[in-house]
Formats: sequence, C-alpha cells, structure tokens
Amino acid sequence: MPGNTFGKAFRITTFGESHGTAVGVIVDGCPAGLELLESDIQKELDRRRPGQSGITTSRGEQDRARILSGVFEGKTTGTPIAMIVYNRDVDSSPYIELKNRPRPGHADLTYFMKYGHVDWRGGGRASGRETVGRVAAGAVARKLLFSRLGVEILGHVVEVHGIKAGGVLIDDIRKNVEKSSVRCADMAAARKIEDEILRAKKDGDSLGGMAEVIAINVPGGLGEPVFDKLDADIAKAMMSVGAVKGVEIGAGFGVAGKTGMENNDPFVMESGEVKTVTNNSGGILGGISNGMPVVVRAAVKPTPSIAMEQKTVDLERMEDVTIKVKGRHDPCILPRVLPVLESMLALVLADHAIRGGFIGKY
Amino acid sequence: MPGNTFGKAFRITTFGESHGTAVGVIVDGCPAGLELLESDIQKELDRRRPGQSGITTSRGEQDRARILSGVFEGKTTGTPIAMIVYNRDVDSSPYIELKNRPRPGHADLTYFMKYGHVDWRGGGRASGRETVGRVAAGAVARKLLFSRLGVEILGHVVEVHGIKAGGVLIDDIRKNVEKSSVRCADMAAARKIEDEILRAKKDGDSLGGMAEVIAINVPGGLGEPVFDKLDADIAKAMMSVGAVKGVEIGAGFGVAGKTGMENNDPFVMESGEVKTVTNNSGGILGGISNGMPVVVRAAVKPTPSIAMEQKTVDLERMEDVTIKVKGRHDPCILPRVLPVLESMLALVLADHAIRGGFIGKY
Amino acid sequence: MPGNTFGKAFRITTFGESHGTAVGVIVDGCPAGLELLESDIQKELDRRRPGQSGITTSRGEQDRARILSGVFEGKTTGTPIAMIVYNRDVDSSPYIELKNRPRPGHADLTYFMKYGHVDWRGGGRASGRETVGRVAAGAVARKLLFSRLGVEILGHVVEVHGIKAGGVLIDDIRKNVEKSSVRCADMAAARKIEDEILRAKKDGDSLGGMAEVIAINVPGGLGEPVFDKLDADIAKAMMSVGAVKGVEIGAGFGVAGKTGMENNDPFVMESGEVKTVTNNSGGILGGISNGMPVVVRAAVKPTPSIAMEQKTVDLERMEDVTIKVKGRHDPCILPRVLPVLESMLALVLADHAIRGGFIGKY
Amino acid sequence: MPGNTFGKAFRITTFGESHGTAVGVIVDGCPAGLELLESDIQKELDRRRPGQSGITTSRGEQDRARILSGVFEGKTTGTPIAMIVYNRDVDSSPYIELKNRPRPGHADLTYFMKYGHVDWRGGGRASGRETVGRVAAGAVARKLLFSRLGVEILGHVVEVHGIKAGGVLIDDIRKNVEKSSVRCADMAAARKIEDEILRAKKDGDSLGGMAEVIAINVPGGLGEPVFDKLDADIAKAMMSVGAVKGVEIGAGFGVAGKTGMENNDPFVMESGEVKTVTNNSGGILGGISNGMPVVVRAAVKPTPSIAMEQKTVDLERMEDVTIKVKGRHDPCILPRVLPVLESMLALVLADHAIRGGFIGKY
Repeated sequence: MPGNTFGKAFRITTFGESHGTAVGVIVDGCPAGLELLESDIQKELDRRRPGQSGITTSRGEQDRARILSGVFEGKTTGTPIAMIVYNRDVDSSPYIELKNRPRPGHADLTYFMKYGHVDWRGGGRASGRETVGRVAAGAVARKLLFSRLGVEILGHVVEVHGIKAGGVLIDDIRKNVEKSSVRCADMAAARKIEDEILRAKKDGDSLGGMAEVIAINVPGGLGEPVFDKLDADIAKAMMSVGAVKGVEIGAGFGVAGKTGMENNDPFVMESGEVKTVTNNSGGILGGISNGMPVVVRAAVKPTPSIAMEQKTVDLERMEDVTIKVKGRHDPCILPRVLPVLESMLALVLADHAIRGGFIGKY
Repeated sequence: MPGNTFGKAFRITTFGESHGTAVGVIVDGCPAGLELLESDIQKELDRRRPGQSGITTSRGEQDRARILSGVFEGKTTGTPIAMIVYNRDVDSSPYIELKNRPRPGHADLTYFMKYGHVDWRGGGRASGRETVGRVAAGAVARKLLFSRLGVEILGHVVEVHGIKAGGVLIDDIRKNVEKSSVRCADMAAARKIEDEILRAKKDGDSLGGMAEVIAINVPGGLGEPVFDKLDADIAKAMMSVGAVKGVEIGAGFGVAGKTGMENNDPFVMESGEVKTVTNNSGGILGGISNGMPVVVRAAVKPTPSIAMEQKTVDLERMEDVTIKVKGRHDPCILPRVLPVLESMLALVLADHAIRGGFIGKY
Repeated sequence: MPGNTFGKAFRITTFGESHGTAVGVIVDGCPAGLELLESDIQKELDRRRPGQSGITTSRGEQDRARILSGVFEGKTTGTPIAMIVYNRDVDSSPYIELKNRPRPGHADLTYFMKYGHVDWRGGGRASGRETVGRVAAGAVARKLLFSRLGVEILGHVVEVHGIKAGGVLIDDIRKNVEKSSVRCADMAAARKIEDEILRAKKDGDSLGGMAEVIAINVPGGLGEPVFDKLDADIAKAMMSVGAVKGVEIGAGFGVAGKTGMENNDPFVMESGEVKTVTNNSGGILGGISNGMPVVVRAAVKPTPSIAMEQKTVDLERMEDVTIKVKGRHDPCILPRVLPVLESMLALVLADHAIRGGFIGKY
Repeated sequence: MPGNTFGKAFRITTFGESHGTAVGVIVDGCPAGLELLESDIQKELDRRRPGQSGITTSRGEQDRARILSGVFEGKTTGTPIAMIVYNRDVDSSPYIELKNRPRPGHADLTYFMKYGHVDWRGGGRASGRETVGRVAAGAVARKLLFSRLGVEILGHVVEVHGIKAGGVLIDDIRKNVEKSSVRCADMAAARKIEDEILRAKKDGDSLGGMAEVIAINVPGGLGEPVFDKLDADIAKAMMSVGAVKGVEIGAGFGVAGKTGMENNDPFVMESGEVKTVTNNSGGILGGISNGMPVVVRAAVKPTPSIAMEQKTVDLERMEDVTIKVKGRHDPCILPRVLPVLESMLALVLADHAIRGGFIGKY
C-alpha cells in the first residue's frame, strides 16, 4: 500500500520529483462553493519558494501554480482540485557523481533499498521540492478554515542552532514573521539567527532549529478518538515532513519534569464559555480540541546537504569513500519549511473539521 | 469518519469503555500460520495490568484475555483475530459527583463537546483502560515480527519528574527493566524514581516522565513515502496514546542545536553491509528504515487524576467550582504505559513490514 | 491489506468462524444519542437465524446478541459498538472427511490457496454464519436511518428456480413478506416456491433465485463520485455476500434492450419537488440518489452444499474423487439471505448519509 | 469523505471535468522497475477516444497523454505516476440553455442537489470524459499484470438493443474485436449491431447493451474476504462507470433458474493442477480467484443524451418544460466504454495482486 495520500475527508495526493517534469497535488474533498483563485495558492507558494533571500538556495524556480480542475467561475465545485507546478530550473549535473554514493542524512540509501530503481536527480521524490504540493493544498485548507470557521494558522521560527527566540505574542508573529528573512518573530533573535546562518553557509555547513505553529479560533470538538486523535494526526503530519525529527504539543517534553498539579490546566467560566487558565495541553484533551489555541512545535534537522567532506560508501564498489555534496542548498531550511509546517497543520484541521461535521458540503 | 482503527495492512480496531462490559480488539491482516496462544497475549497484558506494585492503581483486574476467532489448532488462519477482556472490578461511585464537573487534564469536557451523550464512568472510552486492546494486538504484532524477521522491541523509562536514567546498553534493558517496579534500566535511577513516585502519591499528586522504545533487527526498506513514512506513522502511534505530549526519533529535539556535519550519520561498510557510524537518524532516513535500531522517545504527562483540590466548572450550573478527584489512580503512569508504547511501535512495524512485502501471506 | 471492514463513515468490522467460539462485529461511526437496545438487534437476527421453518437448516442457534460497548443508558455514545453472538450448536464431525476434498461451489479450495492454514469446520470464515455480524450492524444502521431520515428498507424474494413473483406494491411487501416462509410478497408465487424448495430438499439438491431490496425516503444527494458512487458501493455490498453472483439497479440488465428515449426517466414537478415519472435509474443518477426509491436486485446462487454425489479432488492424494456433502444446510438460502441483503443496503445508505452530512454527529 | 480514489494497494485518483483545462490521474502504488512509455498509455487511450468511427461522437480530441512523474529512464520508480491529458476541442455553447434544465438520465439534477455549485459544461465531472484517467491508469495496470503474471484482459460487446452475439472463443475476441467498429467479436452480429446503431443515430435516439470482460491466467488466491472479495471489488469497479446499471460474474443472473447440482463447478485434476469442469463461478469462489478465467458482464444503458424531445423541469422557474439535448454524443457508448470496463477489471486485479503478495515491490 502506497503512502502519497494524506487525510480522509479533506484528502490530498501529491506527485512529482525534484528534477522531473512537474510537481503537484490533487485535493479531494474540498466542499463546493469556496472562492478560490490561483493567486490564493501563489501567495503561499511564494513563501516556500527558493531564492527568496541570501540564506536560501539559489535554484531559480518561479513556482507558478496552475489549477487544472475543480474550480468553476472562481469557486470550488466539490470535485477534485488538481494543481500543478512545472519544474523550470533543473540542473542535475552535480548529482551524477553521487549516483552510487549515498549522501549521509539523505534518503538516497533507503530509497535504493526500498525501490531498487530510483530517480536520483536532486533527491528525486525525497527532495523538499515535493512539499510544493503540500503548500498548494495547504493554501486551500487555510482558505476553507478561515472562511468557514475563522481559524487562523500562524508559524514562527523559535530556535536555530541553540539561539532561542524570546516569548512573543500572537500579534508579534502576525507583524514580524514576514519581515524577517529567517521568519523569527523576536527581531533581536532574528538578527542573531541570520548571522549564525550566514556563518554556517560560509563554512559549508548547515544548522538545525525549531519551529512553532499555532492555530487560533479552532472550535472545540475536533478529533476522532482513539487513534485519529487531533494530536496524533498532527504528529504524523509534522513528522511526515522530511526534516522533522520531533513533535510536541503544548507543554510537550516539558511534561517530563512536571507534577499533575502543575500540568493540569484549570477550567474557568469566561463570558459563558469554558476556558483553561493555562494551556499546557496545547488546546487538545483526549485527542479532541477544547477551543484554546492549538500549539505545536517541531524539531527540524540541519540540511543534510553540506559542502564539507563526509564519509560514505560506494554501493557499486562496496567500499568506503568520502564525498562533498555540491548543488544548490539552504544552509538552514527553517524559514522555508515553516510554510510547509503551517500547511500540514491546516490540512489536519480541515480534515477534522469536515470529519466532525464542522464544515458542511457547501 | 470514526477513528478506532489503526494500521492499513496489519489493522486493529479497538472497543470498550473503562466501566462497560468488556474491552477488546479485532486484529485484521495477521498472516496465516503464526503460532499464537492466549498465553502469548496474557504475558503482555500482565505487564500492563493494574495492581502490579505499590506504585500502580489498586483496581483489581486480572485482565484475562480470550481469543474468539482467527486461530485454529494453535495457529492463525489469516482471518480476523478477535480478543476480549471482560471488566470485573468496576466501581463507578466516585465518578457520579464529577458527572457535570470536567476533571482538568482529562477528556471529560471535550468528549461532552463532541458527543453530547457520554459514558462518564471511569473516563469511559477515554480511559487508559482502552489500551488493553492495543497491548493484546501488540502481542500478536511482536510475535509476528520476531518469528518472521527477528525484530525485537524493547522499552525503558528514561526520566520521571526530572530524574534521568544514565546511558544504558540494550542488554541492560533486557536484564533490568522487568526487575524494576518503575521499568527503568538504570537501577540507581530506578530507586530514586520509585521514591519520588511514592512521595507524589503521598501528596496526592502525580508525575510526568519520558520513555524510550527501541526496535532492533528492523530490515532496511520499511516505510511508505511521502506521508506514511515510518517515522510519521510512529509519531501518530505514540501520540495516539492518551498521556503522550511529545515524540522524537533518534537525536530528536537535540537536532535544534546541531550542525549538519554533527548530525549526519556517516555511512561505512561493515562485513558487506552499509551501516551508520552514529544513529542520530534513529534508524530512519527519508521515512524509510535503514537497518539501524529504530529509536523513539515519548514524553508522558503526569496522570491528570490527582487527589488535590483543583479548579473547574460546573457545566449544569455554569459556574466555577473546585473538585478533588477520587477513584483509584496511578501516581505515575510511566511503568504501565511502557508496554503500550512498545505495542504501538510493534503495530507500526508489523503494518509496514506487511505493506513493504517483508512478511508474506504465510 | 485485509478486507474485513466495510464502510468509511459508518464502518463495520466483522469477525468469527462458523464453528469457532463466537461471531460478531464492531460498528464504528454510529453517531451519539441514538436509542439502541439489544432487542433492536435481536429482532433482525431472528429473521436471519437458522431453524425458522421447515425450509431452513436444522442447526439450532438462538443467536442471542450482546452489546459490549458503545451504548450507555440505552443510547449510543459515538464510540465503537461491539456486538457478539456466541456459537452454541456446533457439530464439526461431518466436515472431517471433507478436510482435503474441497466442496464444489464452496470456498474450501480458494481459502486453502490463499491462506494455507484454514479452519475447515463448517466452512469456517467463508460460512454464511459470518453474516450474523452484518445483520447486527445492519440493525443499527436501519434504526439510525429511520430515526434520523425516515428511510425504510424493504426486501422480498422475487424469484426462485425460475418461479417469478408478480408485481407487488410496497404495501404488499410490508404486509406479506414475514407471513411467508420464503419471504415472497406475492402469496400465490410464495406457495409455489415453497413447494419447489421442499421438492429440491427431498432430492438433496438446492435452488437459486433473486431478491429485491428497496429503500424509500432516501434524500437526494447521497453518493460520492466518481468511484464511491452510491450504486457502486451498493454493488460491492451485495456482491460481498457469499451467494450473490449478480447485482442490478433499477432497470438493470433490462437496459440492454432499450433506447435512450425508453430508458431516460422524465423529470416532473410534483408539489414543489422534482420527481421522475418512471424509475429506470433505480433512484440513482450519476452515482447520487435523486430522492426516488433505491431499487436493487441480486442474483443468489443455489446453496452449494447438496447431498447429491459430486466430483471433486483429493488435495492430499492429488486425484479425482466423489463426495456427498453432509451437515445441515438450507435447500434455498433466499429467505435467510434477504435480511443480509437488506442489512448491506442499510449499511451503504448509513455510510453515505454520514459522509454526505445528512446525519450529523448527534 | 470524497470518492475520487479507487484501490488500496494499486491506487488511482482521477481529476478533471469535460470542459475544464485537463483530465488526468495519479497512480500510486505501482511497483518500481516496470518498463513504461507514454506510448503504452496512448495505445489504450486511442481505443477510448472520440471520433474513431461514424458511430462515435464527433468531438475531436487527440487525447495525448503525458507522464509527469514516477517514471525515470523508461521505468517506474515506485513513486506516484501522474498522467495528464489537456482538453482541446471544447465547445460549451450547447449547454448554456440547459443550465437550469436537468437532462433526463444525466447527473445534472443530482450534482446540483449535492454540490449546489456545479460545472455544468458538457456534464462537467459526471461526463464520460472523466474515464480518460481510468484508461490511462488501466494501461499501467495491464502492463504490470501481463509482465509480472502473464494476465491478459479481453473485452467484447455481447449485446446491443437486444441483438446478441453468438458464443465466441477467446481467440475470436483477440482477432475480431478491434476489426469491428462496434467491438463485437461475432462478425455477423457486429454488422447487425452497426446497422442498428446507425438507425438509432438517424432517429436521434440511442441504444443500450451488454459487454463482457474476461481475465485469463489470473493466479488462484486473489481477493480479500469478507468484504473486499474479488467479485465485490469488481462489482464496485464496473458499477462506478457512469453508464453501467448491472454487473454479473460467471453464470450471473442465470443462477436464479438453476439447482445446486447444475451450478456447482466440479473440480478435476488436470496435469497436477485443480481445475473446474465448468466455470459458472466466473473464476471466483468465496471471493477469491480459483485460477479459472474471471468472467464479468456489465449492462450499459443507452446514452441519455438524445436529440429527441424530452420532458424535464426548469429549476429556476420551478415548472415543467421540454428539451432537446444538442452537443456531440455517441448513439451507443458500448464500443467506447469497453476499454473503460477492461481498465477497471485490470485495476482491481492489479490491486489485489499486490495486496495478496503476488506482485512484489520490484
């Protein structure tokens, strides 16, 4: 059973390789009647696309999205929405010499183990370029969530190579993130992070970090116990992004040091609604949203493509060798992976909003 | 769309409430010809069942599992394996007064939001008792994985309320875990943790912690990009356990402080096989196993049921109140959640082993 | 990937073998708040159970259903409804000599091909006894459909061994079917059919026939193009019943002799609603219900278990042999398969009613 | 939950509207290493495309398929295979006046009921043009089945408007079908059918009929009881094609007139393999293939688009009206629906061959 489909009620299937003809996605299950333009998609793709600043890869893709189906007279029809982005700036030459020499930290070896015949150009299907489809679909999910339920999805980079952002308010995220080339809402930390990334780039190395994504105005009641819990599906969504190695909700790993009295969020009545005083649960109890903000953090590993010399093996000659990975890469993927993580959160919420009957057919 | 089924090729569906008639599971997709006895199931259920020691709940369930179908002459037939455990020691009286007063940290409020009509006795479906079915199914998965592929699943508690276990070897885990009432393989830490839990119990409070589960001898090639990656499904599996608030694979959140050069695991040839020198990836690259141990850690929150006074609301009278949660509870759920986490890892691996063709029909 | 689950939003998983410990089902996805008693289930099981009359098998099963979960204070809770029927009157002795001699028309050979290790007692999992779970789940679906949407499901036998029932009205079906041991609403045909079945029974032979199931008051709009069309899912549901070899909707195979002008159902306005003058489409256009009655017919093969001598092979000795199938069998399964077919139609409609948002969470 | 995906292990998702930008499909789950060229796809699309002869629609589509992903160096890579056909010859003008007047026999009314906002041009998503994606995917399935298992899929038209083909051999089908504009292997019947179709075309009417599809060399053991039986999935596959109103396997509806002794297929040993003397079961017992040819027949309704005057309603003015359907239509869709039915059978078999472990990863 293949694995290129995500979601059950709002369901996406992505396709495409980094150096193939095109990448794209089919969104199946978007209700009819949603206003949707190609510019809605493009806006989010532009946040993900390469070449935005000095700290991203120099691959020059415009990433123009085209909607092929499912939209008529500017509105969705309830039928599958196919979206496509043709690959334009492909240069496979740096990969030829790596063909039999799996890059450490990459999927080269494991794709070979699994499939035998692999499109090795630019990472093929395992490339981050695959996330173009996710972001295009995420743009539809975000529009749906906002227009029907007022749900807003926000994201910011909270740590890079040990440099941590200070506490920020929702409004700081709204205001600052797009001003910062590293998408950190704490402007002082943002400057330090940018310097750190440029230093790593100069060294031919790369940096890991952490991102936080938040959904506000999520209605209480989303999530399907006992396996398709809202947090379980969020964890899967985040971890399905290539670079992510850890996911936490609310207090997350912090719970390991807490007592029940410290960690339980007391309930209070607030203008006729039940709220929690704190939000250690990250807006989810028993796998179901409780109306408080859904707060998720993901650990993002340093880009495995680095210009430094690394040990690997030659699969043909069956011997140890060293390589340097050329090509065009991001010294820190955090700023560009952020829209992907936001998209994944949007996709999970849209899926559960429909599953739970919060968004109707039209 | 409901959510009580997990897995695609090795698929389980659980049922049952804490104070209902029975809890259980149907396993669909176990290949024919596997030797399976009720004692195989019982062995794992005994590790999960209440009343094992002074640090677990005093609810006196024997948890006798019965296999109802799918096994003939001591071997599986490829048809659904239904397993059932009747509830025996049910006392719903402490819950009556909490009926309209959601317990902080519990699913009472959100189940009410979602379903309207809720079995509130003992947490109902949201109770940890639901995991009986997971462990029974996990026992089948473990037996299948070991007999067909030699895969072994191990687990140990690595932290409780800030007390951390030191580094341990696989053999320490094998030898020590079942000797320790807290299932910590570092015996010195185990004693400290036990004291800490007894102290919390006396206070009427509870403690959070962290567990690690490891699978060894996993063949390379398990996992289905790009959404059903092995680590994505593991993350979902872990986070679907009620108390889990964070999941990490390999270096996990540690990657946020690392460079690419530090984090990439170099490949080397070792007696004709490709191995990695380090295992920061936790045995998974690009969502596919690489043959190294699969290493997963989960953050487990302190049991929300505590005897201390807590703020909550009365949903009928729509006002703030305080409650103390009575009933029989674990002051720290780590030792008993460990077999559940091991089971979830086993379920994911069995599912992907079949999906990937590593385990045939019979 | 196993196949013991049916439906997506209203989802059932059945388990159990003919001569095993029990048969049963988990219903996942029934909305909360539906009044449900064990007697609701029993009523339908009694229509399916053996030993109802002289024309059914003499196996003496009371088929008492027990609800194990998902119902609290007489109402569903939205959590899985597990239902179980223990097998009581099991006699496996007639099957021993058939162990290596596959019965023609039965699944013995193909189960052996597929699974290798098979529970051969009484047909095992391939027995019609497996449908107990379907009928129990169908009873829930019927109650849900009727209480929320007013949908009524009716069935009648329309042909046995070439003896065809005359045209009957919905009211004839309501009045006559349960009065007739063969469940044919045309009382004159019913008598002829009963005689014909008794004759076949005396000969040690069995008879095939055709059943019709109808759903009225189905709202327009059920069905999910382009693959999960309402008629596509109905066809699958019917054909998944062991004895069914053909399915048709509305005019069915009659369309092969028609012109477009004859077959198209003209639309007319009737008290402000769009109706069709005829119903050749069987209430479904483009895979979506149009508000007219959904009409389905299924061809049911003669019970393959017959007392006459038949040619088969001995799989151990690899040679041709002859057998006579003993055991207790129905000379015509039509009357008892009818509640199963009705149940399958109810399951499809309940599934699509939830998928389409016609039935909400509670 | 949307319905535009078919299959579980070999899984296709189609998109596109008749008069939209493009139609296409993603195939997920095709094993790596299969040789696949665009010409493999084109060959089958050419059999389905309009304008092949005087008895098909005059819409002038070349239907050039392009493979966008999943193929590298002429071989599949195990990643999603996206295929696209751009719509070229679109003329929506005849549909404008029908916008609020649902065509009898078409999905106009029910799509409006379900979605509210509909692409009404040329039938939109409900058009037969949607099957381009099915045939493209079916071409992949056929190639896979033949190259790995030697499975061959054949189809022929067996009846049009009551004119029935005589019995033909497999070799007649292989030789004659593509020679006949109506794809009937009995050449005498083919000529009569062609005349009959031309007569109907002249009258502005259309004709229904029946097609048979056969798979030979199917290994025993395909199919997943109890719901995903091979015949159940075939029934769904066939009935999901817009024009199909009935499906039967083997003896099909003929079983209604038979006894068990007549209908059971006796087993015999034939050069060390178990065969059946007759094939009333159509190659499937208990939902699992038995190694004999899989034989399926589908009833295909007359094209609902006819030039004759028909009664319908005006949905805006809420009154009865009459219409004549203009546009370019097939007077009998049988010859062009045949490759679609063959494709559906191939898709089911490929799906089950992978599910059952008959076709491995590569």
